[in-house]
Amino acid sequence: MSLSSITSLPEIDLVMEQSMQAFLDYKKTNPKERASFLERIAFEIEALGEELIRTTQAETNLPEARLLGERGRTTTQLRMFAAMLLEGSWVEASIDHAIPERVPAKPDIRKMLVPLGPVVVFGASNFPYAYSTAGGDTASALASGSSVVVKAHPAHIKTSELIASAIAKAISFCNLPAHTFQHVEGNGFETGKALVQQSNTAAVGFTGSFSGGRALYDYAAARPRPIPVFSEMGSTNPVVLLQDALELNAEVIATQYAGSITLGVGQFCTNPGLLIGIKSASLDRFKSSLISAINQVPAAKMLHQGILTAYQKNSAIALSTNGVHSLANENASNEINTTPIIANVSGADFLANENLKDEVFGPYALLIECADIVEVKKVWNSVSGQLTTSIMGTDNDFAAHPELIEMATSIAGRVLLNGVPTGVDVCASMVHGGPYPATTDSRFTAVGINAVKRWVRPVCYQNCPDHLLPDALKEINPLQLKRMIDGNPYQ
Amino acid sequence: MSLSSITSLPEIDLVMEQSMQAFLDYKKTNPKERASFLERIAFEIEALGEELIRTTQAETNLPEARLLGERGRTTTQLRMFAAMLLEGSWVEASIDHAIPERVPAKPDIRKMLVPLGPVVVFGASNFPYAYSTAGGDTASALASGSSVVVKAHPAHIKTSELIASAIAKAISFCNLPAHTFQHVEGNGFETGKALVQQSNTAAVGFTGSFSGGRALYDYAAARPRPIPVFSEMGSTNPVVLLQDALELNAEVIATQYAGSITLGVGQFCTNPGLLIGIKSASLDRFKSSLISAINQVPAAKMLHQGILTAYQKNSAIALSTNGVHSLANENASNEINTTPIIANVSGADFLANENLKDEVFGPYALLIECADIVEVKKVWNSVSGQLTTSIMGTDNDFAAHPELIEMATSIAGRVLLNGVPTGVDVCASMVHGGPYPATTDSRFTAVGINAVKRWVRPVCYQNCPDHLLPDALKEINPLQLKRMIDGNPYQ
Repeated sequence: MSLSSITSLPEIDLVMEQSMQAFLDYKKTNPKERASFLERIAFEIEALGEELIRTTQAETNLPEARLLGERGRTTTQLRMFAAMLLEGSWVEASIDHAIPERVPAKPDIRKMLVPLGPVVVFGASNFPYAYSTAGGDTASALASGSSVVVKAHPAHIKTSELIASAIAKAISFCNLPAHTFQHVEGNGFETGKALVQQSNTAAVGFTGSFSGGRALYDYAAARPRPIPVFSEMGSTNPVVLLQDALELNAEVIATQYAGSITLGVGQFCTNPGLLIGIKSASLDRFKSSLISAINQVPAAKMLHQGILTAYQKNSAIALSTNGVHSLANENASNEINTTPIIANVSGADFLANENLKDEVFGPYALLIECADIVEVKKVWNSVSGQLTTSIMGTDNDFAAHPELIEMATSIAGRVLLNGVPTGVDVCASMVHGGPYPATTDSRFTAVGINAVKRWVRPVCYQNCPDHLLPDALKEINPLQLKRMIDGNPYQ
Repeated sequence: MSLSSITSLPEIDLVMEQSMQAFLDYKKTNPKERASFLERIAFEIEALGEELIRTTQAETNLPEARLLGERGRTTTQLRMFAAMLLEGSWVEASIDHAIPERVPAKPDIRKMLVPLGPVVVFGASNFPYAYSTAGGDTASALASGSSVVVKAHPAHIKTSELIASAIAKAISFCNLPAHTFQHVEGNGFETGKALVQQSNTAAVGFTGSFSGGRALYDYAAARPRPIPVFSEMGSTNPVVLLQDALELNAEVIATQYAGSITLGVGQFCTNPGLLIGIKSASLDRFKSSLISAINQVPAAKMLHQGILTAYQKNSAIALSTNGVHSLANENASNEINTTPIIANVSGADFLANENLKDEVFGPYALLIECADIVEVKKVWNSVSGQLTTSIMGTDNDFAAHPELIEMATSIAGRVLLNGVPTGVDVCASMVHGGPYPATTDSRFTAVGINAVKRWVRPVCYQNCPDHLLPDALKEINPLQLKRMIDGNPYQ
């Protein structure tokens, strides 16, 4: 059911019941069938051609080149999960053979991962393809064998409908249950709440604001049967600028970061919003270069009016905080175009004003000038969980402060050295997640093949005759998987 | 700090602050150091010798042979996690090499699992060793690199203190931070609530009642920073008795199940509490044999007065439910000793009375006599998430109903064919978990090496110089781990 108009609350029950019925069939598909389905979705998205790109441009103000890139990323993700299914070891198959002579006798026990059930996905406004209707949450959930219901993002409804139509074509082409994927449109927050509370819903994926992500988490936790919610809720992505690196490369680092702060009008969850350094001549050089690079960035349109309004409001709150000084462009934004904002504050004033830790979504960064490395660490540790944290440092810097990388792993899911956090590579080693409030569960990632682990649970079979076992667990290993055998990994 | 008296609420803050400080050092230990620590705990528990066994016998009414077996299981678990640490692949190390010529350039990204932080453990009354102070939750959390605070179970405080003293000796022997493990004793539920709510607590493991496990889950979800809670909350472990199996083996199956229902006075979370079959002559034979086997089981003491009282109350509620008929021993229990109870009910009456789905903890089972296989499935599917579900069937039975095993995987974490659910083998393939309300998160297991996954999160390093990486991710692979390399598993 691809609904092209507002879904009423009673209809939500029907949608989720249909999703459960489809799940009961869809979960029986074999890895090849599921892989073909994901590949076909990628094909159908590409087949939408120019119409998709033009529609999204009109809805999001994002330039064509960016959308082409993001479409490529989306189809790459789908194909990555297809490859994962064909390779197969993601099911973590494990076999412990019986030992009848042991006292007590050891039974034959075999374990693998199975899908949780219907997954409800809430996509992001800032990634109309890669984190939306056929984005990473949907692709990983479909790969797991779960059915999916996407709540269309109101900021790009037509894009979402087009993508949903591509998925519907792939379902039809692959002869899968029609309700394996469903697309609903809502009128306000009640639709999302109803989807999360509906008894058939087994898990939730969300990318967006802290308030939205936390609310869905709270609804899910308060259910009679609580369900897992993976909400990714943004980040200030703090960057530590070490002294030797600044002395050698202040200008280069400033240029690099001016690009990262303003990339895509700053509308990335990995946008570096806090820059932390030690007050010094080299930090002054960094600051000058950053200001001059930022001042050269042309004004540009944000995704939609709501994001622009929030940016103006939140940056104004930050700039009016005690001790905060604007360094660039404070008043240059207008009702249509946005210019980046850079400000600075002392470490002491940052620590004294809790609100400065809040994300200002958009091309904004706050330079925190600390008295010494002790204060740098204090500032860094004072911010809550992050998707990323970066350190710009030389070998000398790290030799002087070997504790910094270990500290960084406590703060974020991804630790970068001498790079910028924008640009999330889609690969097996990627962690796009992190301690709360970056996400509601730091044990998972939203990017990379491990994203599938959010939607699966282990099941073991005890004393099951070989011919009744799933292929992944049969003795002759028909799928040729790497498996754990009698406690020995990856035989 | 091994506190041997009630811990006040202000002291909880101190305990958790100490746990966090210890964690910051303990997490830096290498796999060998952690493995030696776990092995030393096992050694120190064995060194407690007779005193431990005698103390626990006095506190729990459990017989010596059972306690010796459970002590063996506990030390086996500790040594299993030590072996896991030495083998090393549990950290899921993954390396994606840089591809500088790609557009955009691909950075070097390397991922592994790191510990969450201080874990609070609430042990079970029915496993004073294996699911308590140094049980699976503690062993897996310490293996992960997390520090641990155990809230002693009030039903075996002295046992818990002895085990805590053994852990303290191991900490001292291994030169680890003194607060890597702490033991607190509480006065009522407030201590547990305070431990879960304390800001330094990173995760919670609980084994016990539904009301207790759900309450802790709710406190954790309502925190400003929610934390994961793995509560294991019991199960009725439904057993489906198929027709051909009964015709061939009614008496053998009845004897087998009489043993399982009454093992350890029925005080196991895997105790089979619901037996589902089709009304027939062979089911009558099963019933007669079950009654006669059950009537031969001698009366025995339960763990403590509270469990006996709950057993008497809950079995009385079940027996007074419309359509339920007692088949054995209804009134034979007294204030000291408990006898097993078997009752029967029709499928229709079972479905009409929601309370019959509730666990009656103890040597109790309800035989549900269904009209046909359709009603069997309806009854089976009506019970909520389970730790285990079992099917007794022949090849003919499974050929006639190939859908049953797939159905079973939706109900439980462990699916058994032709066996009894009591007896949880400790091995890599074991899943001791399951859909809610068996646990609060079906994506994890409490038994087997994967139990460690509850207490860890992934972190990736981007562009980190080799010498600054953890050993697990260094290019030369000094730990000789099986790793994912450039998306290829287990190289």
